[in-house]
Amino acid sequence: MKHYLSLKDIDSLDNWVEEARDLKEDPRKHKNLGSDKTIGLLFFNNSLRTRLSTQKAAMNLGLDVIVMNFGSEGWALEYADGTVMDQGTSEHIKEAAQVISQYCDIVAIRAFAGLQNKEEDEAEKVLNGFKKYASVPTVNMESSVGHPLQALADAITLAEQNTKARPKVVLSWAPHPKALPHAVANSFVEMMHLQDADFVITHPEGYELNPEITKSTTIEYDQKKACENADFIYVKNWSSYSDYGKVLNQDKNWTMTPEKVGNAKFMHCLPVRRNMVVADAVLDGDQSLVIEQANNRTYAAQIVLKKILEQ
Amino acid sequence: MKHYLSLKDIDSLDNWVEEARDLKEDPRKHKNLGSDKTIGLLFFNNSLRTRLSTQKAAMNLGLDVIVMNFGSEGWALEYADGTVMDQGTSEHIKEAAQVISQYCDIVAIRAFAGLQNKEEDEAEKVLNGFKKYASVPTVNMESSVGHPLQALADAITLAEQNTKARPKVVLSWAPHPKALPHAVANSFVEMMHLQDADFVITHPEGYELNPEITKSTTIEYDQKKACENADFIYVKNWSSYSDYGKVLNQDKNWTMTPEKVGNAKFMHCLPVRRNMVVADAVLDGDQSLVIEQANNRTYAAQIVLKKILEQ
Amino acid sequence: MKHYLSLKDIDSLDNWVEEARDLKEDPRKHKNLGSDKTIGLLFFNNSLRTRLSTQKAAMNLGLDVIVMNFGSEGWALEYADGTVMDQGTSEHIKEAAQVISQYCDIVAIRAFAGLQNKEEDEAEKVLNGFKKYASVPTVNMESSVGHPLQALADAITLAEQNTKARPKVVLSWAPHPKALPHAVANSFVEMMHLQDADFVITHPEGYELNPEITKSTTIEYDQKKACENADFIYVKNWSSYSDYGKVLNQDKNWTMTPEKVGNAKFMHCLPVRRNMVVADAVLDGDQSLVIEQANNRTYAAQIVLKKILEQ
Repeated sequence: MKHYLSLKDIDSLDNWVEEARDLKEDPRKHKNLGSDKTIGLLFFNNSLRTRLSTQKAAMNLGLDVIVMNFGSEGWALEYADGTVMDQGTSEHIKEAAQVISQYCDIVAIRAFAGLQNKEEDEAEKVLNGFKKYASVPTVNMESSVGHPLQALADAITLAEQNTKARPKVVLSWAPHPKALPHAVANSFVEMMHLQDADFVITHPEGYELNPEITKSTTIEYDQKKACENADFIYVKNWSSYSDYGKVLNQDKNWTMTPEKVGNAKFMHCLPVRRNMVVADAVLDGDQSLVIEQANNRTYAAQIVLKKILEQ
Repeated sequence: MKHYLSLKDIDSLDNWVEEARDLKEDPRKHKNLGSDKTIGLLFFNNSLRTRLSTQKAAMNLGLDVIVMNFGSEGWALEYADGTVMDQGTSEHIKEAAQVISQYCDIVAIRAFAGLQNKEEDEAEKVLNGFKKYASVPTVNMESSVGHPLQALADAITLAEQNTKARPKVVLSWAPHPKALPHAVANSFVEMMHLQDADFVITHPEGYELNPEITKSTTIEYDQKKACENADFIYVKNWSSYSDYGKVLNQDKNWTMTPEKVGNAKFMHCLPVRRNMVVADAVLDGDQSLVIEQANNRTYAAQIVLKKILEQ
Repeated sequence: MKHYLSLKDIDSLDNWVEEARDLKEDPRKHKNLGSDKTIGLLFFNNSLRTRLSTQKAAMNLGLDVIVMNFGSEGWALEYADGTVMDQGTSEHIKEAAQVISQYCDIVAIRAFAGLQNKEEDEAEKVLNGFKKYASVPTVNMESSVGHPLQALADAITLAEQNTKARPKVVLSWAPHPKALPHAVANSFVEMMHLQDADFVITHPEGYELNPEITKSTTIEYDQKKACENADFIYVKNWSSYSDYGKVLNQDKNWTMTPEKVGNAKFMHCLPVRRNMVVADAVLDGDQSLVIEQANNRTYAAQIVLKKILEQ
């Protein structure tokens, strides 16, 4: 059974991006592919782009859509094996996942990192619980450690905008008042590893991402130097990975500015805090791709659902 | 681009009312008009009639519908320009509106007055933010200062029920325990200005509506006198406009009774507090039009969406 | 007008079960039956199975579906007659039910027992309010005193699994940390009274269900003895009925175990607390029917909606 849990579930990124761009030309072309089938979108966390674009993608394919805010509308789930459930949790993931599989042909899950406990977050108990116990394909709508629908949308955007054989792409950390997960950055890095590019990550010391994900990617601690001659600069905040979930600083010298951007295209997954993560002048300028990235979320979700429906 | 933000967006009230009454005869007549198109209904406040009737109207036209409770399901929005977003707001209306425009062909917004600050409410930051930054038509599902879908439904109801060339129509304030916005009353007044009628507003002193809206409408402070020989009495509570957002009194002498109604038809937008705003005997009697007003909400929304889809 | 408020609304359980099993063979067979019609699902309480299976059933029949979490999205309802509504409630059930009937061809309601006041719960103010004031058929998605969609699904499951002319069926209480309503147990008892079976209820003293519902059903206070030679054991917690809404004990000697189950099939409506209500070994074993019970919720809801649409 084909899931979409991480970038690893893409057999050929180039082909998927190409097919997604075809879908973008005629989004309702396959409007009967999902006929008489239902997708369940289960949100354990808030969402704007993912919520709307995944619904839109599903409707483009003719799927019936059920949306559920699991936290407020359902029951508190238990994930541990063998527990005596005499406390706060009302239903085990074993039953929940099997039951939802009775009503949905595809289930999509959003469940963020709690950022309190690295091992717990990396265990991906919600997503992996559904993968393990559901009898239908599972789609990751952002989990503790990855956001592969965002990364696929970003790959589409890069493909649309890139004019070079080997562009220089920079992933830059930026300051933020709250502790944010690593999911978007992780998946962007994994996606870049599937591209031919001069890829550089820049962040203050202490903000190194999981080395098992970054592998041998160049890390440049001098943001200005990292951004020199970049073709694309992807900005994102994340909390510390080594000092897990902590905000080590909010240094506004790392806010992205027109000067640092230079002639590069600017990318961000949104939502973005203006003048903290990035200056108004960048977001409001012609080099910003953020709205097109959001638009491509639809076609990223749509190619994923199409692949699942066609298996 | 055609929006529906206020009554000013109606080119001919008579024609719209007539077309809406045609739709009511055969609601699914244009069931393919919205094919392959999506409407997003964004609620920043609670809703029963607006939520259900607008969905129903959209489905009657074959639109795909996405409903989102923005407050609880999305991100806290920033509306000010140039802010350093290092506080509670996570996303700027600029991005939110542009992003939603990628997924929806029409966006409808409900965002009530806060009643704390007149200037802020009158700036209509949510509705105007979407109008300004969205690239798709925007529909007002009740904003700080207007509820034009309600007023259009009321115009349909009046047209169905009126038998006179120039009926007497009274808008009467009534007591209520909480501070309520002026939106319904404002739009009703604006709608009446598009009608040939003997139109009178009655309320205690201090409850004058915005004079820029009421203009030269007769105000009669004696409720009984105002109601004499009325054909239609529209009852609604609102808070003070001059002493902005305050409840100046809850005088139950202003509760609408069968005696005051006389032979008039009774109207209210609902929800209504029984025996506070209006006596049971009025609501439960044959002269009450409140359920038909609610029914007409569907056809008001449907004619608005139809006009937008046909542009 | 045909409602589905309790098991009493089934004219022939055998026929309904048979028709439901036919629907299960080809769920989309009647996909045009609900064309141009709308069902409103109103939730006053949380839900997983009911929410998803009823939506699925409605979509299988081609109905448009509107889902509303009434508590958080709508207005606080008043149920008493003659009240001066100057307190916390904003809208009377009279208006709400009539208004919703303007937009929906069928309305389905979930409103649990509060377990604070027996008379109030048994008055079923929400469900009966809709039955009384709505002008469209009303479906019970679990009310204070019954859960007839669950019981109908259970009847389908029993019919699929039973091989005997007169099976032994046991309804066993089990411990739970919270006070739970009697609705599922009540409707299961009522459903069993429509079956030819050796039906036994077992629970600790003090947990007797409403005697007007159990009537002459055998009650056996020794759980092990009750379970001997059972073909089906249906486990469920409920709070005390005589000492209304109280948790009298949480005696884990009543937890269902493989030893007590013996060769019987195990049933539970879910959600279930593992190792409190029932041991892991039972739930994870081949004799558990809980997932199939959940699956049959779709076809129970679908036969109910089909009967209503065909009237």
